[in-house]
Amino acid sequence: MSSVIYPKVALIGLGLIAGSMAHGMRRAGLAETISGYARSAETRAIAAEIGLVDEVCQSAAEACTDADLVVLAVPVGVMGKVAAEIAPALKPGAVVTDVGSVKQSVIADVAPHLPEGVHFIPGHPLAGTEHSGPRSGFAELFDNKWCILVAVEGSDQAEVEKLSRFWEALGSNVDVMDPAHHDLVLAVTSHAPHLIAYTMVGVADDLRRVTDSEVIKYSAAGFRDFTRIAASDPTMWRDVFLTNKAATLEILGRFTEELFALQRAIRTEDGEHLHDYFTRTRAIRRGIIDAGQDTDAPDFGRFKAKSDT
Amino acid sequence: MSSVIYPKVALIGLGLIAGSMAHGMRRAGLAETISGYARSAETRAIAAEIGLVDEVCQSAAEACTDADLVVLAVPVGVMGKVAAEIAPALKPGAVVTDVGSVKQSVIADVAPHLPEGVHFIPGHPLAGTEHSGPRSGFAELFDNKWCILVAVEGSDQAEVEKLSRFWEALGSNVDVMDPAHHDLVLAVTSHAPHLIAYTMVGVADDLRRVTDSEVIKYSAAGFRDFTRIAASDPTMWRDVFLTNKAATLEILGRFTEELFALQRAIRTEDGEHLHDYFTRTRAIRRGIIDAGQDTDAPDFGRFKAKSDT
Repeated sequence: MSSVIYPKVALIGLGLIAGSMAHGMRRAGLAETISGYARSAETRAIAAEIGLVDEVCQSAAEACTDADLVVLAVPVGVMGKVAAEIAPALKPGAVVTDVGSVKQSVIADVAPHLPEGVHFIPGHPLAGTEHSGPRSGFAELFDNKWCILVAVEGSDQAEVEKLSRFWEALGSNVDVMDPAHHDLVLAVTSHAPHLIAYTMVGVADDLRRVTDSEVIKYSAAGFRDFTRIAASDPTMWRDVFLTNKAATLEILGRFTEELFALQRAIRTEDGEHLHDYFTRTRAIRRGIIDAGQDTDAPDFGRFKAKSDT
Repeated sequence: MSSVIYPKVALIGLGLIAGSMAHGMRRAGLAETISGYARSAETRAIAAEIGLVDEVCQSAAEACTDADLVVLAVPVGVMGKVAAEIAPALKPGAVVTDVGSVKQSVIADVAPHLPEGVHFIPGHPLAGTEHSGPRSGFAELFDNKWCILVAVEGSDQAEVEKLSRFWEALGSNVDVMDPAHHDLVLAVTSHAPHLIAYTMVGVADDLRRVTDSEVIKYSAAGFRDFTRIAASDPTMWRDVFLTNKAATLEILGRFTEELFALQRAIRTEDGEHLHDYFTRTRAIRRGIIDAGQDTDAPDFGRFKAKSDT
């Protein structure tokens, strides 16, 4: 019994997401051939050394030749450039998708380059870790996480369903959403939290009266939780903020407003306001755990992780 | 060979920290008798049922009778009240410590109540999880974490060293610091991060255009990391902010300033500023991992934790 959905899959970019897709496709037997390309010669060499994909190519266009599915897994700021490079190599009927964290700008950058007869179905798997590079991927990354596919004008419904089956076979749940709503939802669940974490870590690093060594030693009191997402790939995140500017600034505006209200409650010693607020926020974590989107183990299961090693 | 440091230890408050101390003292054979008291009858009943301590008492004063070490493990807002209750029951030469997250206010509230001949050595173990209550403790909580002891006027050096040995026997590293510096350091590594996490979770919960169900489903994109510390005990945290007001507001002020600078970089599309900032914050996580204060496993080891269950 073959589970092949797209016989040849081309991965453009060979970082955490593409690498995890390669491992996941092999786990589920989803492709006959996986080709791959990365701009960096070092990344290509590592990918070849560890056998991440079947064919490491010397150009994006070469990787896309004869591919049934092309996955753009590069920072959102260069999606348009890559689309222009691969366009002449795409075979008629091929599906082009991406894994970028922002959808409106990727659609605007990529769609104009793609030839007639190629199906463009933007996507975004909501999964990741703070690690990056060709060695960081693993097959389980998408298990029980959500992948959002975005309907664009003229999307072929049958092709959207086929790509959904592909992501489900990688372990994901799939939702379909319009691009503007995607960008707003992600501003809340990902982009604003990342910027806030980066900011907090930057502030701690920059204080004169508390040393970096103190920040590090005493980080278990809460701060260290912020450092994980603030260790994410700088290029990827620069591009996310520049391309999802409006939604991110909107949510940060709401955040600042609320932060000022809480600062005011501290200053005026309004303990009831604080207590009510802190009680309300407990419920949403319960919801996340019940939905299988986080572990209930204390401290994210860090103790368990440690005792295993 | 006996490892007993204080023959009788009284735990006032039977939540996560006191419970973990009880488990840790048994693991290391640190006490002959552990007595305990909690204000809530339900907590006392659970503590008795699971044998958390040797004697569950009906009052704080009763628990402190004949105790060599008394540990105040209650929210910082009620430390003074509890100190007044136990003062008449303290035996001469007893050591009183606490585990509160703020030190200047605890010293101001507790010290005036304690009789001559009792040693007051405030403390703060920098360890915890988002869980609370008498069932949430475990012996490993303090392993390789830091416990800060605070020197107050007239502290007996030999008693400070003895209490240090006690915390080391529970698995901690020990530092001694003055109370004002403690409160500033903790504002950075704990109090500001908690308020920021509470704020972000509150904002996400309160948006009209993104539903709670979307926030929950798509939380793995970063947001869920904030929900852990925003699920911490509301009473404890209300008290922390009210009692460490000045230092928390100072750090939040610095945070807001920096957040505005990054928002401006997004608005003006200053990609270089963003990239530089995001590169700098990576180093501090490396420091935390190298210092053994967090796991290097991707995603805090959540995958490992999950695959074990």
